[in-house]
Amino acid sequence: MMLRMPIKRIWTAIVGLMLATAAAGAQQPPLAARDTLPDGPRVFDSSRRGPSGSPIQGPKFRVVPLKGLAYPYALAFLPNGDMLITERAGSLRIVRNGVLDSEPIAGIPPVQNGNLRGLNDIALHPNFAQNKWVYFTYYKPSPSQPEAASATLARGRFDGGHTLTDVRDLFKTDTLVTGPSAARIAFGRDGQIYMAIGVPIPPRARPGTATPSDAQDPGSHFGKVLRLNDDGSAPADNPFVGRPGYKPEIFALGIRNAMALTVHPETGELWETENGPQGGDELNIIRAGRNYGWPVISYGRSYSGDLTGDTGPIQELPSAPSMEQPLLFWSPSIALSGMAVYTGDRFPTWKGSVFVGGLVGEQLQRIVFNQRGLPIRRDPMLTELKQRIREVRQGPDGLLYLLTDEAAGALLRIEPVTEGE
Amino acid sequence: MMLRMPIKRIWTAIVGLMLATAAAGAQQPPLAARDTLPDGPRVFDSSRRGPSGSPIQGPKFRVVPLKGLAYPYALAFLPNGDMLITERAGSLRIVRNGVLDSEPIAGIPPVQNGNLRGLNDIALHPNFAQNKWVYFTYYKPSPSQPEAASATLARGRFDGGHTLTDVRDLFKTDTLVTGPSAARIAFGRDGQIYMAIGVPIPPRARPGTATPSDAQDPGSHFGKVLRLNDDGSAPADNPFVGRPGYKPEIFALGIRNAMALTVHPETGELWETENGPQGGDELNIIRAGRNYGWPVISYGRSYSGDLTGDTGPIQELPSAPSMEQPLLFWSPSIALSGMAVYTGDRFPTWKGSVFVGGLVGEQLQRIVFNQRGLPIRRDPMLTELKQRIREVRQGPDGLLYLLTDEAAGALLRIEPVTEGE
Repeated sequence: MMLRMPIKRIWTAIVGLMLATAAAGAQQPPLAARDTLPDGPRVFDSSRRGPSGSPIQGPKFRVVPLKGLAYPYALAFLPNGDMLITERAGSLRIVRNGVLDSEPIAGIPPVQNGNLRGLNDIALHPNFAQNKWVYFTYYKPSPSQPEAASATLARGRFDGGHTLTDVRDLFKTDTLVTGPSAARIAFGRDGQIYMAIGVPIPPRARPGTATPSDAQDPGSHFGKVLRLNDDGSAPADNPFVGRPGYKPEIFALGIRNAMALTVHPETGELWETENGPQGGDELNIIRAGRNYGWPVISYGRSYSGDLTGDTGPIQELPSAPSMEQPLLFWSPSIALSGMAVYTGDRFPTWKGSVFVGGLVGEQLQRIVFNQRGLPIRRDPMLTELKQRIREVRQGPDGLLYLLTDEAAGALLRIEPVTEGE
Repeated sequence: MMLRMPIKRIWTAIVGLMLATAAAGAQQPPLAARDTLPDGPRVFDSSRRGPSGSPIQGPKFRVVPLKGLAYPYALAFLPNGDMLITERAGSLRIVRNGVLDSEPIAGIPPVQNGNLRGLNDIALHPNFAQNKWVYFTYYKPSPSQPEAASATLARGRFDGGHTLTDVRDLFKTDTLVTGPSAARIAFGRDGQIYMAIGVPIPPRARPGTATPSDAQDPGSHFGKVLRLNDDGSAPADNPFVGRPGYKPEIFALGIRNAMALTVHPETGELWETENGPQGGDELNIIRAGRNYGWPVISYGRSYSGDLTGDTGPIQELPSAPSMEQPLLFWSPSIALSGMAVYTGDRFPTWKGSVFVGGLVGEQLQRIVFNQRGLPIRRDPMLTELKQRIREVRQGPDGLLYLLTDEAAGALLRIEPVTEGE
C-alpha cells in the first residue's frame, strides 16, 4: 500500500513523535531500590561538600564494569597484568588481557559455600616468578559434621594455563565453624603469611564448633590473626610460641571477621578491616601479641540492639586496659570489606588515601589522611550504583579495581577521565 | 511536494527514529557532583538490603519540593496547618495553604548571620491558641564588639497576619560568641522552655568570648541546655539553683552544638542531636543536672585529626565516670541536624522510628528501633538529591517535612505513594 502525503505533514508528525519519545525517555524514572549495574562505563565526579557546605574539589573518574562473575571474593594480579579472581562458590576465574575467561581454572578443592565461607582469598607468593605458587584460603567441608568446615590455607602451582597443579592444604583449623567466618591472607614484608580467621555470630554456631568467645580463647584458631611460614607451619619467633594453652600460630587475638588484610606499602604494618555487628566496623593495625577486643569490647551493638558482643551482656564501654583501640571505627556500619592504600600516579590527589569497600553500605569509601598521617575525612563514593563492594585493590597500572558481592557480580575498573571528557 | 512511499518503509523509518531518540533521551547523564533539586515531585523506593544482602522492604514515597527559601533553619506548624519558617539571615517566612508567601513576616530584630548563628529556632507556646505567643532564638549583634553576638530567646505575638508584634527579648547570654553556635528550643511537658546553646570551634573564638571549654564551665551559658520559664527567668526548681558558681538557668552541661531538641512524644524525655567535630555526632537524652562530656570526651576527632576535643590533648577514650554516654553516636559524622519521632499513620511501617537530618551527609536518616526500644538500624535516604538537610518535622497531617540548608533552599514534603503509582 502506498501513502501519498505532503512531506511537510510527514516531517511534522515525525518530529512530534521524536519529541514525545525523547521526553518519555529522558523523564526522571522513579528511583528503584536496586539499580542494576550498567553494562558500559559511567563517569562520576568525586567533588563534594564538607563542613558548612564548603566545596571540596575532586577528580572525575570512570567506572568500567566487567561482568560475568558470581559473588567474586578476592583478586590477585599476575606479573603480566592478568588477574586471578576467586568466586565464593568455589571457582577460580582469570581475566586475560582484559577479558574474563569463561572457563574457570581447574584444581580448587571442594568448598563449603555460605555465610562468607567458601573460596575466599588469594595471593601470590613473593617469589611467584620462580616458584609459581598461588596461595588461597577456603572452608573445607568436614567429612564428619554436615554444614561445618575448617578454615584452610592451601597452595597450588599456576603456570599461566588452565589448571592449578600440585594443590595441597598447608594449614587447617583443628576445630570447625558453622556460621559466618572469613579467611583473609597477606604476605608480610618478613615473608611470612598472615591469615585472619573470623568467628561466627551465635545463632549459627552449632555446639562443638567455633563461637564468638573463641576470639578470646588462646586454644582456638578462630577470631585470630595467624602468622605462618610459607609451608603452613608456625614460625619459631611467633609471639606465643611455647606459652601453655596458646596455639603457636597465633599472632593476635580478639578479631570478629577480618574483611581485608593489607600490608601498608610505606610502613609495612599490617592493616585490617573488621565488620562490627551493628555499628563497630573497625580499621586496625595488627601488632604482634595484641588483643583487639572482640567480643569483649566493641563500638557496635549486637543485632538485638543491646550493647553486647553477640554473646550477652559485656562491658558497656568500648575500651579496656589490655585491649587495642582501632585506628578508626564506623557507626553505623557500612560492613567494611576490602582495602587498598593508594600509591599510584593516575590519581595524584588520591595518593596516600586508603580506599575501603562497603557491603551493606554499597560504596567505595575514601579515607583521607593529613600530613601527619591522621585520618581527617571519609568520603562515600559510588553509592549511586547500589552495589555491595567486596574487594578493593590497586593494580600494577595504578588504577583501582573493585569486586562486587552480587549474584550478577563484576570487576569494576576505576580510571581517570581526561579533561574535556 | 508530495511523497510517495510504501507505508511499511515509512513506518520502519519512524520506529527507527523513535528508538534512536528514546535511547539518546534515556542515556545516563554523567553524574554531576551537585544535582540541583528537581522542581517537581520525585518518587523514591525505601527498600534496601541488610546484612548479607538480605532484602528489607520499605514503602515508596514522594518528595514534593517547595522552593524559594534561603538557608531555612527551622519550622513550626500553626493550628490551621500553615507553617512558620525561619531563614538564618533573619527573615521569618510563612507558608499559607501550601504556598510560600513572598513577603516575610515583619518584626524580627536584626541578627548576626554566619557560622550557624543568625535567626535560628522557632516554637509556638503551648497555649498559642489563647496567647498567640511565638518564641524564637537568634544571635543578637553585640553593640560593642564586632562579629560577636549573644544567644537570645525572644517572643512575639502573631495574629495570623503579616507582623510579629510586641517582640521582646526574654533571655540573653551575658557573654558573647564569635564562632559557630546554634540555639534550639523546645517546650517540655512541664511547660518550661529548654534551650540548647552551642560552643564554637577554637579558630573562631575571639579572646573574651565563648570557647569550647565554656561547655564545662558552670559560669557560662554556652555549651549548655538551659531550662527557662516562659518569661525567660530561671525556674526555682532548676538543678543548680543556689549552687555557687552555677548559672541558675543551667539544666545540663557539656554540649557542643545541639542541632535538634525534641520532646519524645511518648516518654516526654528531651532528645537531642549533636554534631561531633569529625566523627562523634550524638543522639542524647538530656536529663537534669547531667554532663554530656564536651569537650572532655567524644566519639570524634578534632578537624586536625587528633583525638582531641578541639582544645588540645584530652582523654583518648570516649567515656568518663561522671559523664553521660550518648544513646547513639555516628562515626564518620553526617552532621546530624533536625529530628522527629514519627508517630503518624501515613507511613505505618515508620511508626516509632526516629528521623534525623544530615548536613554534610546530605540525607534523611531513619533510625529503626525494635520492640524493646533499642536502636537496631540506621537507613540513609534521599542521598540522591545531594541536599544538606537542616530540619525534620512531622506535620499535623502525619507527613514528614524537611528543610534544606541551601542558598536555593526548600521545604520538602514527604508523602506516601498509592499502590499502582
